[in-house]
Amino acid sequence: MNIILLSGGSGKRLWPLSNDIRSKQFIKIFKKEDGTYESMLQRVYHQIKKADASATVTIATSKAQVSAIHNQLGSDVGISVEPCRRDTFPAIALATAYLVDVMKVNPEEPVVVCPVDPYVEDCYFEAMKDLAVQADKAEANLVLMGIQPTYPSEKYGYIIPESNEYITYVKTFKEKPSADTAKEYIDQGALWNAGVFAYKLKYVLDKAHELIDFEDYYDLFAKYGTLTKISFDYAVVENEDKIQVQRFKGQWKDLGTWNTLTEAMEESVIGKGIINTQSSGVQIVNEMDIPILAMGLQDVIISASAEGILVSDKEQSSYIKPYVDNIEQQVMFAEKSWGSYRVMDVETEAMTIKVTLNPGHSMNYHSHAHRDEVWVVLAGSGRTVVDGMEQKISSGDVVTMSTGCRHTVIAETELKLVEVQLGKEISVGDKQKYELEY
Amino acid sequence: MNIILLSGGSGKRLWPLSNDIRSKQFIKIFKKEDGTYESMLQRVYHQIKKADASATVTIATSKAQVSAIHNQLGSDVGISVEPCRRDTFPAIALATAYLVDVMKVNPEEPVVVCPVDPYVEDCYFEAMKDLAVQADKAEANLVLMGIQPTYPSEKYGYIIPESNEYITYVKTFKEKPSADTAKEYIDQGALWNAGVFAYKLKYVLDKAHELIDFEDYYDLFAKYGTLTKISFDYAVVENEDKIQVQRFKGQWKDLGTWNTLTEAMEESVIGKGIINTQSSGVQIVNEMDIPILAMGLQDVIISASAEGILVSDKEQSSYIKPYVDNIEQQVMFAEKSWGSYRVMDVETEAMTIKVTLNPGHSMNYHSHAHRDEVWVVLAGSGRTVVDGMEQKISSGDVVTMSTGCRHTVIAETELKLVEVQLGKEISVGDKQKYELEY
Repeated sequence: MNIILLSGGSGKRLWPLSNDIRSKQFIKIFKKEDGTYESMLQRVYHQIKKADASATVTIATSKAQVSAIHNQLGSDVGISVEPCRRDTFPAIALATAYLVDVMKVNPEEPVVVCPVDPYVEDCYFEAMKDLAVQADKAEANLVLMGIQPTYPSEKYGYIIPESNEYITYVKTFKEKPSADTAKEYIDQGALWNAGVFAYKLKYVLDKAHELIDFEDYYDLFAKYGTLTKISFDYAVVENEDKIQVQRFKGQWKDLGTWNTLTEAMEESVIGKGIINTQSSGVQIVNEMDIPILAMGLQDVIISASAEGILVSDKEQSSYIKPYVDNIEQQVMFAEKSWGSYRVMDVETEAMTIKVTLNPGHSMNYHSHAHRDEVWVVLAGSGRTVVDGMEQKISSGDVVTMSTGCRHTVIAETELKLVEVQLGKEISVGDKQKYELEY
Repeated sequence: MNIILLSGGSGKRLWPLSNDIRSKQFIKIFKKEDGTYESMLQRVYHQIKKADASATVTIATSKAQVSAIHNQLGSDVGISVEPCRRDTFPAIALATAYLVDVMKVNPEEPVVVCPVDPYVEDCYFEAMKDLAVQADKAEANLVLMGIQPTYPSEKYGYIIPESNEYITYVKTFKEKPSADTAKEYIDQGALWNAGVFAYKLKYVLDKAHELIDFEDYYDLFAKYGTLTKISFDYAVVENEDKIQVQRFKGQWKDLGTWNTLTEAMEESVIGKGIINTQSSGVQIVNEMDIPILAMGLQDVIISASAEGILVSDKEQSSYIKPYVDNIEQQVMFAEKSWGSYRVMDVETEAMTIKVTLNPGHSMNYHSHAHRDEVWVVLAGSGRTVVDGMEQKISSGDVVTMSTGCRHTVIAETELKLVEVQLGKEISVGDKQKYELEY
């Protein structure tokens, strides 16, 4: 099975756990059997691999998410990187071309496109296999997955099918109706549009060539910035007469807000937290190293990270976006391909961060034009390269790097260090990368 | 006017702002005219100085609070340090002897003893002057301040006066009655006992000599650890027939819990915080550098510090003590006589703290038996002395100190530095102090 996972942009609806560079799909919030936690991305990826160990999974995403994806899924996963955001049609076209031209998949094979963040049971991925089989039959150009509605929601699009069969042709689509209208649709057998669909690779490639002048994946990638923003629904679905839909009756949740996310959480406390017995419906998700104490609260979500602290009535939590948009703040933590970092302290002309490198990983070889840096190794061992000079480092070692000097650190074991940045203009953008030759 | 301020022990009722070494009186929570904040201690001290610029103020407290008091009030304030806690009678006797033997105050002069944490208007301190004048008249051996009750509280002791005059003799005391009984007392003109009283220094000195075998302040200090724990009420008040009470009708609040403390706060947000319009009665006290967002909450206090995060229904906040007692945690921040420190990160064999030294101040000259240390200067300038070698330091400088090496840092301007502690056994107790000779 070929799968394209659409990994969407930065969402602030799950602030403070999501931020400008960490989208909700990367938050580790779902308990695994071994007691550790995994993210939506990890959960979905492992579910796919469980349903089909040989599945070719390609994640369509922006440059900003590549590090986090490699950090969470390892370096083997296929990623179709969008050089910039151009809406879903260019993104799906690029990922499709990636499968054919880079992964060398036969254009006659089907692919299933799926958002990265559904909260579903394993049977959902079995249904995805049926979807691929159905697309392969070519009775229609597109096969959608329709979710059996559980209530007349106003926030989903509805698919009106021609019949009540498991697989049937689509009569028409209805965008987010009122609750009353939604109820009528449901009575007629309508289904929620979950944004999952399958097609033969060739079908979307042909559509792409109709609309965009390009040679192959590499050419499309090169001119990606010049493409017009257009959604897949608008560019393809609305103009397609031959669409089928396959019904899915299992549990399906869209975990877009704290309210829905906490419903899917198995525990009331993740991280350090205490809830007193006079509280009910309280959930704590705490990424900080200090305890949270909740007393006498009802139906409240409390979440803390290096970015901030949210305390919200569960229902009200759907409305956080405008408030969070007003919080202007530098990114306080990030997952990178080589590990992670967390801002510990900010002074006018100094910033202190904690860097954790995964074993065997290293930063880019780089320099800064406007700041000096000092590393103090807290734990682990590895090597630094500073202006071409290699040096072994371990706990307690200090490395000083002046403005302009080229440097990197390579972790042998897990390596933790304090990095003090010193300068009048400290910014993430002040970074010149080099090839490491030594 | 001579004043003894009783600065009580560590309270956890205002966790996470109070901790094992920072008592509630040190929390900066009251807005001054210039927009900055002051603590209960600072507020009371400045109110006393406003009422009587020449007042001799002695703070009776434990060793653990001395640094914080000097940090908040400067080095001029008199402190009677209790070598260990021995309840209020030994503490008041020691402070009284301190006034006579160290401050050389005439034993015939009166003194007013007052807790450090009443939340009162300036007129309260005018009333304290009256109290001193009354004690000086020696119509009674003790003159108490009685607070005009505003409701039949069950949590205060009641003073039953002989008449309804401004100053009158005390008939008897009643400890924390039921609300019904309290109401009867109030109808009879009873007053709350605020723990404020005045006497001639000689009176308590004589009582002390009756009960304890000692020469003078220095001798009493030396044998303090051998004294029996006994309260001033039990040792003195209960055996005294000649006690007067002076009525105080102004505003008086005892800020012992979050519920009462937030009533006294002028603003709903101290520090970084946003409260949405669907919330009411929400107050935020945030000492962290990250924002708190409160959505759709009613009558909730949210407080965050390096120690932890409290989110509590205001009424429930009175019951936090047992929960906080169960949170075992190292002290994450502290005010010292030379400045302050904050723990930024804890690893198994490494701890990273941020140290801020006030201009002109320095740490003790000291060494550690079980850890190396590294300083990275973030801001400011000063000098270090390491094993007798003096060195100028400023932003960006790195100082490494091996186990056993003697070191200190002297701030010329305000000096901020990151200190990384490295070793298998990192503890606050691992500290050997030396005289600095260079």
